[in-house]
Amino acid sequence: MLKYDASSLIEQIQAALENNDIQSVIRILETLKSADQADIFSELNDDEKMAILPHLNPAFSADLLEEMEDDEVAELVGGLPSEHAIRIVDEMDPDDAADFLGDIPDFQANAILAGMENPEDVRPLLLHPDDSAGGLMTSEFLALRRKMTASDALQAIREWKPDNDDIYHLFVVDGQNYLVGVVSLRQLITSDPKDLLETFMDPQVIAVTTGTDQEEVARLFARYDLLALPVVDHDRKLIGVITIDDVIDVLEEETTEDIQRLGGAQPLEQAYLNTSPLRITKKRIGWLLLLFLTESLTGTVLRHFESELASVVALSFFIPLLIGTGGNAGSQTTSTIIRALAIGDIQIGDAIKSLWHEFRVGLMLGVGMSALAFVRALTWGSSPQLAVTVSVAILTIVIWANMLGAILPILAAKLKIDPTVVSGPVMSTLVDATGLFIYFSIAKIVIGL
Amino acid sequence: MLKYDASSLIEQIQAALENNDIQSVIRILETLKSADQADIFSELNDDEKMAILPHLNPAFSADLLEEMEDDEVAELVGGLPSEHAIRIVDEMDPDDAADFLGDIPDFQANAILAGMENPEDVRPLLLHPDDSAGGLMTSEFLALRRKMTASDALQAIREWKPDNDDIYHLFVVDGQNYLVGVVSLRQLITSDPKDLLETFMDPQVIAVTTGTDQEEVARLFARYDLLALPVVDHDRKLIGVITIDDVIDVLEEETTEDIQRLGGAQPLEQAYLNTSPLRITKKRIGWLLLLFLTESLTGTVLRHFESELASVVALSFFIPLLIGTGGNAGSQTTSTIIRALAIGDIQIGDAIKSLWHEFRVGLMLGVGMSALAFVRALTWGSSPQLAVTVSVAILTIVIWANMLGAILPILAAKLKIDPTVVSGPVMSTLVDATGLFIYFSIAKIVIGL
Repeated sequence: MLKYDASSLIEQIQAALENNDIQSVIRILETLKSADQADIFSELNDDEKMAILPHLNPAFSADLLEEMEDDEVAELVGGLPSEHAIRIVDEMDPDDAADFLGDIPDFQANAILAGMENPEDVRPLLLHPDDSAGGLMTSEFLALRRKMTASDALQAIREWKPDNDDIYHLFVVDGQNYLVGVVSLRQLITSDPKDLLETFMDPQVIAVTTGTDQEEVARLFARYDLLALPVVDHDRKLIGVITIDDVIDVLEEETTEDIQRLGGAQPLEQAYLNTSPLRITKKRIGWLLLLFLTESLTGTVLRHFESELASVVALSFFIPLLIGTGGNAGSQTTSTIIRALAIGDIQIGDAIKSLWHEFRVGLMLGVGMSALAFVRALTWGSSPQLAVTVSVAILTIVIWANMLGAILPILAAKLKIDPTVVSGPVMSTLVDATGLFIYFSIAKIVIGL
Repeated sequence: MLKYDASSLIEQIQAALENNDIQSVIRILETLKSADQADIFSELNDDEKMAILPHLNPAFSADLLEEMEDDEVAELVGGLPSEHAIRIVDEMDPDDAADFLGDIPDFQANAILAGMENPEDVRPLLLHPDDSAGGLMTSEFLALRRKMTASDALQAIREWKPDNDDIYHLFVVDGQNYLVGVVSLRQLITSDPKDLLETFMDPQVIAVTTGTDQEEVARLFARYDLLALPVVDHDRKLIGVITIDDVIDVLEEETTEDIQRLGGAQPLEQAYLNTSPLRITKKRIGWLLLLFLTESLTGTVLRHFESELASVVALSFFIPLLIGTGGNAGSQTTSTIIRALAIGDIQIGDAIKSLWHEFRVGLMLGVGMSALAFVRALTWGSSPQLAVTVSVAILTIVIWANMLGAILPILAAKLKIDPTVVSGPVMSTLVDATGLFIYFSIAKIVIGL
């Protein structure tokens, strides 16, 4: 419902830049939300960007840059005089500042840290990998004391003057900074101003340590409808807070990675068109080569049955059809099972249950496909024996593919390997070689080669 | 960090039930968060569940049931005396109550609505599909007036006594209930108590209408870091509010659907193990049959080249290898492109750019695969001509597969079809038939058949 015409705004900005009218540019950008500002800004060319950036105030720049791609930010800020860069980083949220400093060369990062007002907010965050709780948390948070009253707490919030919305769940610590509870801003407002926090806080706080993986963090937010999650050290002292806006980004990132893995490629770290073809090739070639080598087992199987093939050339007509259908059935199963594992619909202990489930699905699908394949083989003018061979083979292959698709992801999880390793391409490759073996074995029996 | 031992708790509950000690059961459940209560409760058998449910107070039951699977809730509440069911539904959030009433037979739903205290909160929500903004919104929200002061607004919140956290972004309306702004609870607390809302509210509110798709709703939350999103009618009158906890569930649901579609199956509506094999079969057989029919083009191609196949049987050894590799390369590409489209990294207008990107990726991958294939063919004892054929074919097929994988999802988006329709199985099927044609055409030229 909040619509803006990006291309017309970009033209207005470019026209203003030609007249050196930076004030108009700023006015146009100020009418937009940060995410939209970043989109418009990204569409400008590098010269235009660098003409505008030094004129924006640091807080405005920080908001804008926080919405942009990491690599683009690193390039832009790297081009600014270091004094200006320092003032922008000073205005960023500590977690975003730490992400940025991690993306630029060390000597630049150190120069910026040396000039910052509060480097101590950012420095500890640099120790943690981006995809861990430590990398997601901010060190800029307000910890409340258990002996405060509701009115003290509200006063503390007013004095802290938070400039963003990360204050709706507040964490309560004792005198030694141990995490002891959580209160919501709603509770602070609705309870008696004289009540002590410890009388109404929830002492059952869910917390994570810095090393917790971001996927687990996202799972906890989703499961317990959290708005903020405290991060503690091994003594359960409060050292940071993760807020929900960062978690939504994590969910998006994790989904992207899962989908790329399920397609049989390693995930890209950057936006697609910003990733060079060479880099994309590197992310894909490993799996492609490995699958090629595995797939060449099909050649071994075919050579093993060379005499059968030579005597009934028509056998080969059905090869792609049979192994293709098996691969498709396997991909259907594996993607369903992988996702069910990810959201907790099935656990490792459900292996047998899932196998039995997919056996029955495979049986029904197989019977359907097998009837169709029988008719198709006859209409292609195959002998009745060949038609029987094809239809028994497809039934067997579909059941086999479904069971393989059910068990492999669970097996991976059991071995602590990410189940997305059993991608669609992995499934079809595995089904290809084994499927051929099944097909020719059945052919030998039925046709009596 | 909040650990509990599910199986021990379940045993304790079952032991208490055998002694008819319902109070102990309730005490055990009360120590847990709602999501964990629901998990434990789901593990009990139907008799045990029905022994406990009537003894829980309606508000407790409502919290518990809101965390459970829709179909399980429909079954459980259907088994309760209708008076008890009415009191539980009365305590549910209106959006959850509407979802539940939509899942049970109409006559039951009408009986419950007739008995409810505030059926008018729920009734309008029943009109909207579950996966639209209207289906996600709650009608239980506090609208503030623009002429209120900050202190009036805080007082209104206290009087409203919200029992959940959906009050951190509050929407401001004028005398005719038109949406005019948004204020955050943070602003209410930190601004001067005497300031009118209209002086500090943000008048640029992002809003949606009831028909907006839930995927678009989730995208807006992620893009603008929202905690709540107002739903308006076509006159921009405020009629509901969507909160972030519902959106996290939507993100999870949409990801599940996308992953199942990318595996070449229609999405399941329920948890995997709760979906019968027959129902799963129905969700998969359509695509499997369609792909089978398309795949049978491979047979047509093979029969077309029957004489070549008969004269050089060794040609057939490479069939699965070549089309398998092409399918894998295509799946890698299509999953990357589909995800890039979903998160806005590429748009429909980037078709040519993406095609050129994937041409270069395909060229590099193809050259690598082609060298490997050449060596592999020679080590299998193939003639040099056959080895050349295979290696030229694999180069051509990989480039072809990559370009097809790039363009088809964008074409689907252009035609307003969900790009996930170009699933891995669809890609490999398309590449199979076309890849064979490429292979045999090259064979005819190189080997001179």
